[in-house]
Amino acid sequence: MTTPEAPGKVGSRREYTGRVINLDIDQVRFPNGKVGDLEIIRHSGASAIIPFLGDPSGDDPQILLIRQYRYAADGFIYEIPAGRLEPGEPPVECAVRELREETGCTAEKMEHLYTMYTTPGFTDEKIHLFVATGLVRGESALEADEFVEVVPMQMSAALKMIKDGTITDAKTALSILYVAGFFLGR
Amino acid sequence: MTTPEAPGKVGSRREYTGRVINLDIDQVRFPNGKVGDLEIIRHSGASAIIPFLGDPSGDDPQILLIRQYRYAADGFIYEIPAGRLEPGEPPVECAVRELREETGCTAEKMEHLYTMYTTPGFTDEKIHLFVATGLVRGESALEADEFVEVVPMQMSAALKMIKDGTITDAKTALSILYVAGFFLGR
Repeated sequence: MTTPEAPGKVGSRREYTGRVINLDIDQVRFPNGKVGDLEIIRHSGASAIIPFLGDPSGDDPQILLIRQYRYAADGFIYEIPAGRLEPGEPPVECAVRELREETGCTAEKMEHLYTMYTTPGFTDEKIHLFVATGLVRGESALEADEFVEVVPMQMSAALKMIKDGTITDAKTALSILYVAGFFLGR
Repeated sequence: MTTPEAPGKVGSRREYTGRVINLDIDQVRFPNGKVGDLEIIRHSGASAIIPFLGDPSGDDPQILLIRQYRYAADGFIYEIPAGRLEPGEPPVECAVRELREETGCTAEKMEHLYTMYTTPGFTDEKIHLFVATGLVRGESALEADEFVEVVPMQMSAALKMIKDGTITDAKTALSILYVAGFFLGR
């Protein structure tokens, strides 16, 4: 229930319909009561997974990163496995699917860690982060436009790659720092 | 210097020119040599600041968060101070300016921590993270469409707000986890 003066949507116009994103120009009532236009990129949301090889409570556990070509980042970058939600797909199912597609692995356990807005100034995209343990290796099944190399990495090395700027992807750095701080109890 | 087969831009068409973002449809050569269309949101980049009140090496130092209305996140959310780079503006100058505009504070020291791609699947937006220490309070100077409340917060409370999902903004969670893990030497 909202009062007429509550901030929020007044109107919406679809400006562009795309493959990955849509662009809307919404009429928005702001907290001061004024109404103005705002550009907003609509995104279906995504799941991302930090997969542990072996025992995550070990001394320096190993995770799987992927290295893939990202045009927007002008080259190959390190990331954790991730992908977009299909229509109606629960985030945990997306996580299971993307982990299998990008690394070939299935996980005995897939735990939700955290959900974040990637950049709430201009998009409603949310990423749901999961931690995958008890990995069993299989065959990967990449989509035609994905170019992905799977790279096992010690946690200590991954943390170093954040500190020295080798890892530049926000969801990847956040996940690694999150599990180092909370999940692994350090 | 690139060879004809190197992945990268083949062509570009501006689909939409906006206030905060532009949308291009680029023709891209992928690592397998194929050429396809890719939607890309062009963004000028941004700086974000984690401001410490008092001695950051203290037992449980205090930082400044802001709480502001974000239409894309459907309500008021906690963030660190941040804002877009003006044309040609160096990231550190943007950090100094945004810290002053949003919190009224100036900092004796502004150190670059980390630079990240917010969501490289569809935008080239980079955020440059800084840590501000030696804060001196003054007057804030918000833009007409900004609705910002400044909220001092102990680091321990901020970490708890990540864990319990109260903080949902990626750059904010990443910055707090980063300084907890690296800057404060914990």
